[in-house]
Amino acid sequence: MTTTATMITLAARPEGAPTEETFAMKTAELPDPAKGEVLVRSIWLSLDPYMRGRMNASKSYADPIPVGGMMTGEAVGEVMASAHPDHQPGDIVVGPIGWTSHALIAGDELRHVDPTIAPIQTALGVLGMPGMTAWVALNDIGGGKAGETVVVSAATGAVGSVLGQLAKARGMRVVGVAGGAEKCAWATDTLGFDACVDHRADDFEQQLAAATPQGVDAYYEHTGGRTLTAVLPQMNMYGRIVVIGMIAWYNGANMDQTVPLPAVWRSILTNRLRVQGMLVFDHHDRRGAFLKETAPLVSSGKLIYRETVAEGLETAPRAFIDMLTGGNFGKQLVRVGPDPA
Amino acid sequence: MTTTATMITLAARPEGAPTEETFAMKTAELPDPAKGEVLVRSIWLSLDPYMRGRMNASKSYADPIPVGGMMTGEAVGEVMASAHPDHQPGDIVVGPIGWTSHALIAGDELRHVDPTIAPIQTALGVLGMPGMTAWVALNDIGGGKAGETVVVSAATGAVGSVLGQLAKARGMRVVGVAGGAEKCAWATDTLGFDACVDHRADDFEQQLAAATPQGVDAYYEHTGGRTLTAVLPQMNMYGRIVVIGMIAWYNGANMDQTVPLPAVWRSILTNRLRVQGMLVFDHHDRRGAFLKETAPLVSSGKLIYRETVAEGLETAPRAFIDMLTGGNFGKQLVRVGPDPA
Repeated sequence: MTTTATMITLAARPEGAPTEETFAMKTAELPDPAKGEVLVRSIWLSLDPYMRGRMNASKSYADPIPVGGMMTGEAVGEVMASAHPDHQPGDIVVGPIGWTSHALIAGDELRHVDPTIAPIQTALGVLGMPGMTAWVALNDIGGGKAGETVVVSAATGAVGSVLGQLAKARGMRVVGVAGGAEKCAWATDTLGFDACVDHRADDFEQQLAAATPQGVDAYYEHTGGRTLTAVLPQMNMYGRIVVIGMIAWYNGANMDQTVPLPAVWRSILTNRLRVQGMLVFDHHDRRGAFLKETAPLVSSGKLIYRETVAEGLETAPRAFIDMLTGGNFGKQLVRVGPDPA
Repeated sequence: MTTTATMITLAARPEGAPTEETFAMKTAELPDPAKGEVLVRSIWLSLDPYMRGRMNASKSYADPIPVGGMMTGEAVGEVMASAHPDHQPGDIVVGPIGWTSHALIAGDELRHVDPTIAPIQTALGVLGMPGMTAWVALNDIGGGKAGETVVVSAATGAVGSVLGQLAKARGMRVVGVAGGAEKCAWATDTLGFDACVDHRADDFEQQLAAATPQGVDAYYEHTGGRTLTAVLPQMNMYGRIVVIGMIAWYNGANMDQTVPLPAVWRSILTNRLRVQGMLVFDHHDRRGAFLKETAPLVSSGKLIYRETVAEGLETAPRAFIDMLTGGNFGKQLVRVGPDPA
């Protein structure tokens, strides 16, 4: 017996911003699972900015997606058939399923999702890689203590929104940076950030300086571009910059929106800054500690999250393209299939 | 009774490279020490690249030198008169004496120099701030283990020469970068570096890549400019860049000799680099540990150092100007007065 999988592939490497032509749709017949494998039907696909890097030919932290190959990504799905002892039909799992309706995948690459804790798609957001990125960045890389000022770019995104709320809980002054008044209002009014500055404002740099009267002790970098340029002069002695992403530059745009490297080096030297890159994939050993703190906060509604949902796998390319320019509001998901019965 | 001090002042703030006109000489009459003070005659003055930063009007990590004020700096001298219980006439001391023949200085700012360990001017070099900078940078900031590849810019300078030798002693592969064949030959043949690359060579970037076939795990940055640009593509995953100085950029020159910030940020992110600024002034608590390791190595001749000596305080400006473009070979000193009787 075979199962027909509908999937989205990388049709061509994008020059600059991806377009609809960057992607293609194809089908494939999947056989029954071989030993150790699991057949999964996808329910929720996660779209994340890091995927843009994998569309380039150059190796970054993972191998590039080959042209014609399926777009990779994490998804939550339901086990349809299993030849792996840990997984049974009906189980809800999360793992590197890809942009596809169905996948045959090694059972060892899947983790169980407990649907009693929170909606299952949170395993892709606040309780998944983005949430864990925020938790590790704050606790293990950026550090700091109550009373410090923290700036979070992409403040209403899947990572930034968690990071800012956790930093607030630790007694820090949290200043978000987001695109547009609506996002900024949500950051302050709903998430409880102390301030949020719209990076599209003409006087953004002045607004950011005004929002950080005690300077900036830690900057959580998701964007690069104009936000980085505005934050740098505000950095305090012994400040930290945690480089988690640089979405403003992923498409090769805004490359001129920055200060020259010598000025950055001078700030690093005279302020004894620490600038450190991080990727959550290096920190699997912290998953238990992350979930121990955050799962109860999500269950009780204390850790707030927001989702933008694209309906149907075929809408994933457009949703991804829009996300790269801030079209999403909170975690970007694609609804691929129905919830389990 | 008064003592006539001859000193060198900052006559004007330099625009770009300092010139002889940047400096002036003047004399002052010093009274006898007040309570807590010590009268010192200077023997050796240290010239260090960081002094260039203090000549600018902008605050860096220390207040700027006022125009007309004495040039600041560390020196080794002999106590002539003391109103401080820790210091007696004839004692050899080191401290922030400045570019002067004599100084009245708070006794608390002076440390004793033991002339039986090594020549007293080593308190300004291998056993002083530069040596301690190297030791702290390697042990407390850059870290790493045997087998790693380390690149040291300004490799024959007061900091770089110590850093490279200590890294070799820890089993690391040490690649120096220096200006000219003579310096590079000394780094490899005398200091024992595994390789040294001349940053003035036309094919410097290719030579550096060839000298680091396993990539670079830690880069000790003293220069900025072309060296940084050449090292960045060689950085390994989890690499460290310790920013100790940026002499190539101090005068506002070579500002175009660099890669764009987005490319640096991309490397920090994908390679999870840690870029960290350091200043030895933050690490006074490590002096004991530093001297415990290095003083015996200097006494026994195992830790090699080299000096360039300018004769007479009046030659300090020219020596400083030359040092900023690599005219020195090893620690730059000024002989201000005769050795103690």
